[in-house]
Amino acid sequence: MSENNKKPVILVTNDDGIEAKGLKALVDVVRPLGKVLVVAPADPQSGMSHAITVKIPLRIMKIKEEEDLAVYKCFGTPVDCVKMAFNHLLHGNPDLLVSGINHGSNAATSVFYSGTMGAALEGCINEVPSIGFSLLNLDHDADFTGSTYYADKIVRMVLQNGLPSSICLNVNIPDGVKEEIAGIKICRQNKGYWLEEYDKRIDPLGKHYFWLTGIFHNTEPEATDTDEWALSKQFVSIVPLQTDLTCHDTLKTLSTWDFKNTTHEQS
Amino acid sequence: MSENNKKPVILVTNDDGIEAKGLKALVDVVRPLGKVLVVAPADPQSGMSHAITVKIPLRIMKIKEEEDLAVYKCFGTPVDCVKMAFNHLLHGNPDLLVSGINHGSNAATSVFYSGTMGAALEGCINEVPSIGFSLLNLDHDADFTGSTYYADKIVRMVLQNGLPSSICLNVNIPDGVKEEIAGIKICRQNKGYWLEEYDKRIDPLGKHYFWLTGIFHNTEPEATDTDEWALSKQFVSIVPLQTDLTCHDTLKTLSTWDFKNTTHEQS
Repeated sequence: MSENNKKPVILVTNDDGIEAKGLKALVDVVRPLGKVLVVAPADPQSGMSHAITVKIPLRIMKIKEEEDLAVYKCFGTPVDCVKMAFNHLLHGNPDLLVSGINHGSNAATSVFYSGTMGAALEGCINEVPSIGFSLLNLDHDADFTGSTYYADKIVRMVLQNGLPSSICLNVNIPDGVKEEIAGIKICRQNKGYWLEEYDKRIDPLGKHYFWLTGIFHNTEPEATDTDEWALSKQFVSIVPLQTDLTCHDTLKTLSTWDFKNTTHEQS
Repeated sequence: MSENNKKPVILVTNDDGIEAKGLKALVDVVRPLGKVLVVAPADPQSGMSHAITVKIPLRIMKIKEEEDLAVYKCFGTPVDCVKMAFNHLLHGNPDLLVSGINHGSNAATSVFYSGTMGAALEGCINEVPSIGFSLLNLDHDADFTGSTYYADKIVRMVLQNGLPSSICLNVNIPDGVKEEIAGIKICRQNKGYWLEEYDKRIDPLGKHYFWLTGIFHNTEPEATDTDEWALSKQFVSIVPLQTDLTCHDTLKTLSTWDFKNTTHEQS
């Protein structure tokens, strides 16, 4: 989008909630670049993935308005924030959606659990160029100076070039200041899963309860083209994600299955 | 898996909750086929996608045990149920995971919001052959006879053949009795998005609140190889889903981006 055109409308959301330092960092990145609408969850929504609120009603509250900036908090999930922005506040699509900067990695299969990436994928489903940003530091007071330097580069690039239809970006950024980051790598999503251990405790009434804990098990530690690899080498990883989950290579295999011979016919 | 081998361990979960008729229907399908472990949410979890519980502790309660069947309710999301089953109850992977039968469609991009499919994708991430089943009827007292007839065929086929690594199945089944269903089609995921309308109301304290409502907008209504098309012709749709979200075709395009010329250097 050239600078002569009217300012792009940029939606900012996250999953750590309206008070998160990473949200403020991302707003600072995009403010010089367009008209900014912030719709972020009132409460932290880590691990909320692509969840939507259907059992209880949603509420939304404007908390700030100034030139080219409006800020709302929404009592729902990150995807609720996106849907409220598109359908209730904007009555249409923004030119760009940015989500984050998340406090903590969303690389590899963590993309599935992430509310940050849920919001970015929701933008993508709605054909809005969308980027999720995550910093590899869980601290609420993390230093975002390195990550905002790179977020700025990536946002400008996407505003300039757009993104292919139905593609969004999962950007993960190593912890550290700008000088400690090696550059940018375009990567594929690393394979792997979380090996969970439940921390089992007993409450004051004598009942068991469990806290989820776990470590990521990288099933391809030797790969050198993945986001986990890039991050381990202090590179920013950019993975282009698609919203078509179909495994097209498998369509043919399944088409050979003969379902007529699988069941004990009752009739 | 041949009938001479020891019985396969089959995990059953859903997102409509432990009391749902669709869960009972699916348990009836798999009981003759193996040792069945049911871990389902205590409360309905529609729209919970791939969410995990991280802010509050999890609880789980055994509610039934008989030969080759144990039933637990878990006070969490569908993915929490899967993780609790794998890591706390089984201490390993089952031979098969089935999720559903959901009351309502999870075709096309609805797969992103679905707790039923969140559970199936979680199985898949953990390298367990996994299938999500959904019936195109939202009624809590829907007739599952047609859907269980087809679920039986598909479960037997997967136990016999397995599934390719990192692939799970999204199975949607038309409403109706067996005779009204035309057969099975292997399909790709239909493109499209939900056009939401928020039903805006005023509570007794004078504050606005919103209920999410919407209709699916099919952006490729002419396609004849998608799940939406198959369902419209009264076929059961089976879409093979992958957990690698990388758009490999886009990797090369992004690699041509020159990030050095995108930012106003401050230094």
